[in-house]
Amino acid sequence: MKKKKKVNAAILIIGNEILSGRTKDKNIAFISNWLNLNCGISVLEVRIIPDVEKIIIKNIRTLSKMYNYVFTTGGIGPTHDDITAQSIAKAFKLKYEFHNEAYEILENYYGKEKFNDGRKKMAKMPKTSKLIYNPSSAAPGFITKNILSLPGVPSILYSMIENCKKYLVKGLKVYSNTINIFTVESNISKELGEIQKKYKKFVEIGSYPFFRLGKIGVSIVSRSNSKIKLLKVKKDLIKTIKLKKIKILKI
Amino acid sequence: MKKKKKVNAAILIIGNEILSGRTKDKNIAFISNWLNLNCGISVLEVRIIPDVEKIIIKNIRTLSKMYNYVFTTGGIGPTHDDITAQSIAKAFKLKYEFHNEAYEILENYYGKEKFNDGRKKMAKMPKTSKLIYNPSSAAPGFITKNILSLPGVPSILYSMIENCKKYLVKGLKVYSNTINIFTVESNISKELGEIQKKYKKFVEIGSYPFFRLGKIGVSIVSRSNSKIKLLKVKKDLIKTIKLKKIKILKI
Repeated sequence: MKKKKKVNAAILIIGNEILSGRTKDKNIAFISNWLNLNCGISVLEVRIIPDVEKIIIKNIRTLSKMYNYVFTTGGIGPTHDDITAQSIAKAFKLKYEFHNEAYEILENYYGKEKFNDGRKKMAKMPKTSKLIYNPSSAAPGFITKNILSLPGVPSILYSMIENCKKYLVKGLKVYSNTINIFTVESNISKELGEIQKKYKKFVEIGSYPFFRLGKIGVSIVSRSNSKIKLLKVKKDLIKTIKLKKIKILKI
Repeated sequence: MKKKKKVNAAILIIGNEILSGRTKDKNIAFISNWLNLNCGISVLEVRIIPDVEKIIIKNIRTLSKMYNYVFTTGGIGPTHDDITAQSIAKAFKLKYEFHNEAYEILENYYGKEKFNDGRKKMAKMPKTSKLIYNPSSAAPGFITKNILSLPGVPSILYSMIENCKKYLVKGLKVYSNTINIFTVESNISKELGEIQKKYKKFVEIGSYPFFRLGKIGVSIVSRSNSKIKLLKVKKDLIKTIKLKKIKILKI
């Protein structure tokens, strides 16, 4: 059996409406969780950029080199501000042309008479792209080199994500463990730092404050590719928490 | 009176918990809206990156040069994974040291006896930084050159944002207008493209599909620094919509 490696990805959100704050993003956490749980792929960077061709081109080129996969969202609809496909074509110096199968899918969906220019635009993509099927609204996403392009509308994106799987090489699974305790971060920061130092190479420990039932608490989240190392960290953490007589919150 | 110019900003979200999808971001839209409405500042890029020193340093240097202001969130607490302040110090080759006033504020807040090392860490920042006061939990944010560093916890960030104002130069206000209509994007994509072309230099038109009451609709959002140009676009849009006998949704 081939040994699995770490596989990573970036997400590139293309859309003025997210940058301006008009629309709240609902795709980042969804894509990241899905990749993590289903493919063992870790998202290492997210960028949100405007619908400007030269900026899209620059980011596609940069992220494509830095990460195993890049997921783009937004900009693949029928209107003038949907320029993701043509920008990716320019980024890789590929022709921007009709994809025969996409054209057929869309023509069937709308019917020949209603298949206007805006709708036809959704069948144009960089040459060599393969389709990511869309069970919601027909217009497919596509993969070009290591770039997977999905729509921005969350419900449509969610319905398509499973169709990305066949294009992805799976990576080492990341396991995680969360302990929620009632205390303030600064009460355990020293001990957390020491445990993190001890397991530096294998486990990544994060601490995140929360407020619940009027009380202040901390979520201690450990993440690792090794279940065994994760268990060791968990034991160390619980020992420390008990020594300091901090209450653990049942979840 | 000095004529106002366009002023822009980037947001740099520092935190593994956002990248992994464990925590959904609640700060991007808030900061962007606040900057837009209160300061006439447009956010042109957002990046989400992990708690890794060399990555933070690289992004601080890059974004600091590209934009008028950079807002960072996260990584300014008391634990080992809070490394924003020291990374910014390294990015600009500034000393990382106690800020006298921050030290006093925190010592007063916790009391001398409970002012442990984790808490003291929150008073350390790059030399020359100025404080952004925190009415919620005492630990201040800070501005270093054009970088404004805020905490990641949304409720605390929200309570501090007004205290950023005195450090910001105001820009030209961006006005916006939204028309919600019941149709599909591809039914008006041609006309929208033509109107966008006509006002290319002055107005930015975006179209965003939505679902309401079981019907498909489109939000047409126009944004401009000129109220007059915006009104002209609105008239053109409404004329087109009426010509095509599309229903406008009352909001």
